[in-house]
Amino acid sequence: MKIGMSHGAGGEVMQDLISNIILSNIHNTRVNGGVGLEDLDDGASIPLGDYEIVMSTDGHTVDPLFFPGGDIGKISVAGTVNDISVMGARPLAIASAMILSEGFPGEDLERIVQSMDAVSRETGVSIVTGDTKVMERGKLDRMVITTTGIGVVKRGEIIRDSGLRPGDKIILTGSVGDHGMALMAFREGFGFDTDLESDVAPVWGMVEAALEVGGVTAMKDPTRGGIANALNELADKSGVGMVVDEDMIPVREEVRAVSEMLGIDPYEVANEGKVIMGVDPEYAEDVLRAVRKAPYGENARIIGEANQDSHVILETSLGGRRILEAPVADPVPRVC
Amino acid sequence: MKIGMSHGAGGEVMQDLISNIILSNIHNTRVNGGVGLEDLDDGASIPLGDYEIVMSTDGHTVDPLFFPGGDIGKISVAGTVNDISVMGARPLAIASAMILSEGFPGEDLERIVQSMDAVSRETGVSIVTGDTKVMERGKLDRMVITTTGIGVVKRGEIIRDSGLRPGDKIILTGSVGDHGMALMAFREGFGFDTDLESDVAPVWGMVEAALEVGGVTAMKDPTRGGIANALNELADKSGVGMVVDEDMIPVREEVRAVSEMLGIDPYEVANEGKVIMGVDPEYAEDVLRAVRKAPYGENARIIGEANQDSHVILETSLGGRRILEAPVADPVPRVC
Ligand SMILES: Nc1ncnc2c1ncn2[C@@H]1O[C@H](COP(=O)(O)OP(=O)(O)OP(=O)(O)O)[C@@H](O)[C@H]1O
Ligand SMILES: Nc1ncnc2c1ncn2[C@@H]1O[C@H](COP(=O)(O)OP(=O)(O)OP(=O)(O)O)[C@@H](O)[C@H]1O
Ligand SMILES: [Mg+2]
Ligand SMILES: [Mg+2]
Ligand SMILES: [Mg+2]
Ligand SMILES: [Mg+2]
Ligand SMILES: [Mg+2]
Ligand SMILES: [Mg+2]
Repeated sequence: MKIGMSHGAGGEVMQDLISNIILSNIHNTRVNGGVGLEDLDDGASIPLGDYEIVMSTDGHTVDPLFFPGGDIGKISVAGTVNDISVMGARPLAIASAMILSEGFPGEDLERIVQSMDAVSRETGVSIVTGDTKVMERGKLDRMVITTTGIGVVKRGEIIRDSGLRPGDKIILTGSVGDHGMALMAFREGFGFDTDLESDVAPVWGMVEAALEVGGVTAMKDPTRGGIANALNELADKSGVGMVVDEDMIPVREEVRAVSEMLGIDPYEVANEGKVIMGVDPEYAEDVLRAVRKAPYGENARIIGEANQDSHVILETSLGGRRILEAPVADPVPRVC
Repeated sequence: MKIGMSHGAGGEVMQDLISNIILSNIHNTRVNGGVGLEDLDDGASIPLGDYEIVMSTDGHTVDPLFFPGGDIGKISVAGTVNDISVMGARPLAIASAMILSEGFPGEDLERIVQSMDAVSRETGVSIVTGDTKVMERGKLDRMVITTTGIGVVKRGEIIRDSGLRPGDKIILTGSVGDHGMALMAFREGFGFDTDLESDVAPVWGMVEAALEVGGVTAMKDPTRGGIANALNELADKSGVGMVVDEDMIPVREEVRAVSEMLGIDPYEVANEGKVIMGVDPEYAEDVLRAVRKAPYGENARIIGEANQDSHVILETSLGGRRILEAPVADPVPRVC
């Protein structure tokens, strides 16, 4: 077997690789009964005294490094903040490991570090440690950054991606497909001229607002594989089904246009500033109101409801009804 | 300015890059008064309740992936375990972010994961979360792994690399130069036939034994830049000098031979299974005894003593006396 692009594309092919080569060969996968490797959640946790430490890591290979709406620095800090956030933990600290190609311009590195700094200040997270390696010219395409985050949550208050219960409302915090389609459009040469921009942003503000209200049962950030992947993971892991009102899923006009032009499903491409939440129906309206007031949450909506069946079903007001499948792989490579 | 190989080579050139481009652009560098970015220690810390969480990260670009004595999987878990250990914290959890090149052989990945598993079992650390990305053929030389570790220590018991006091004994846990020279020899075509092997190993056993005795004032793992770098960092950050008895520094015969052949100073190349400890003189003999009984510690020695001067001075029994300078850069590229 040889590694293919789809092994890194956040769908079923990647899941198989992780199951067959990673999980099957690692014995110590969990600390103190916390969330561990087999849980395949957005991060792991380590119970410690009255707290649970949440840890999450992501390598960033996004191409291009600078794109409309952000750059690899912004995505590397926001992405890790987001995985910690959707576990219900307050992000505290980031470790930043950079691997640079020989010849990489110092000014680009400085811009990237400044972007990391901006997100870290916006979210109150600190960049506390790091590492720098250089590979010889021709051995690495420009640079990659791996960020790992630590967050903290009171013991017992962690939010899992498997906590959805029949009857829970599904909240989506804004439009879908922006990040993946903005990258794709940029690569196809539409450049910085379109209105298409990545949504890359830290979601902690929205999550914190929701947690303050209460009733949140499950969360996930719909990154690689898009909402098609995230909704299916939430349903499968929770052992529930869900019905989603497709008319309620916001897709920007320019995203839809480029999607159609390139034949790419906007539900299957990455978002980098969105959350899908499961919320107890008694709290759903209040959570929605709180999220809408938080940064990046103004377009949040309730898009559906979990039920006792299986599958994610999309319904339209015209009576259409179809199963939304998990993608085999995200159709846009090197998206984060 | 363009990035050169020496920017990733653990000496003064890398220090300058970190100061000028990283530190000068990041504002939030510390959490709750713990060890932070400017401390440039082996990791950072986050005080939390009765504990301090220690965090450290390292990207691994070692070339070749499989070398005498280990592979990138072993080095990636041991290396991170070691940085956590030298902060005085018990390593608990590892996050493993892999970036693979399209076409990378699945069997090699499996061997690498098995090596990671072996070190994790040996040290009792768990691999709790990770990430997988793939870059297109030609964009990355085979694979890199970034491991980030979390450890825990009772509040106030963290060990810093700046804690050395005049009079403290300096313990070195074994021979120097093995890792860097083994890699170099292998690359030069001496192959798996020489006795030259990397020393890559987790140091937690030795550190735990030393901490149980007490009196440890400072620690560092002499990785990139070798003992020349680590001894100078310990002295400079602690504001002390030291005198080291050069006859006491163990250098294997085959390491010395290859060093001379290639004109590379064994003090300036990486070790991957060693610790340098500063120890209160009243505890030094007991700590030494304990370290010698621990795994990988049988050749530990007291090599010198800190004093009120500055500089690291090497003395020989024949009366030689010279300053050991910090290297500009580790002479062996892509060593970890
Ligand atoms: N190389 C790996 N080693 C160990 N665990 C891995 C590895 N790759 C992925 N995982 C685990 O698989 C699960 C899914 O990973 P994935 O990267 O898709 O999650 P994510 O970070 O939330 O998404 P994204 O990377 O798109 O932002 C996580 O629980 C992660 O810990
Ligand atoms: N890109 C970076 N961003 C932030 N901090 C960095 C970065 N690179 C290095 N550092 C910091 O610089 C210090 C020295 O890093 P270095 O990698 O030499 O330490 P180490 O991991 O102990 O050694 P080695 O990497 O050789 O094992 C550490 O405190 C580290 O946190
Ligand atoms: Mg996620
Ligand atoms: Mg992620
Ligand atoms: Mg390092
Ligand atoms: Mg170190
Ligand atoms: Mg290190
Ligand atoms: Mg990930």
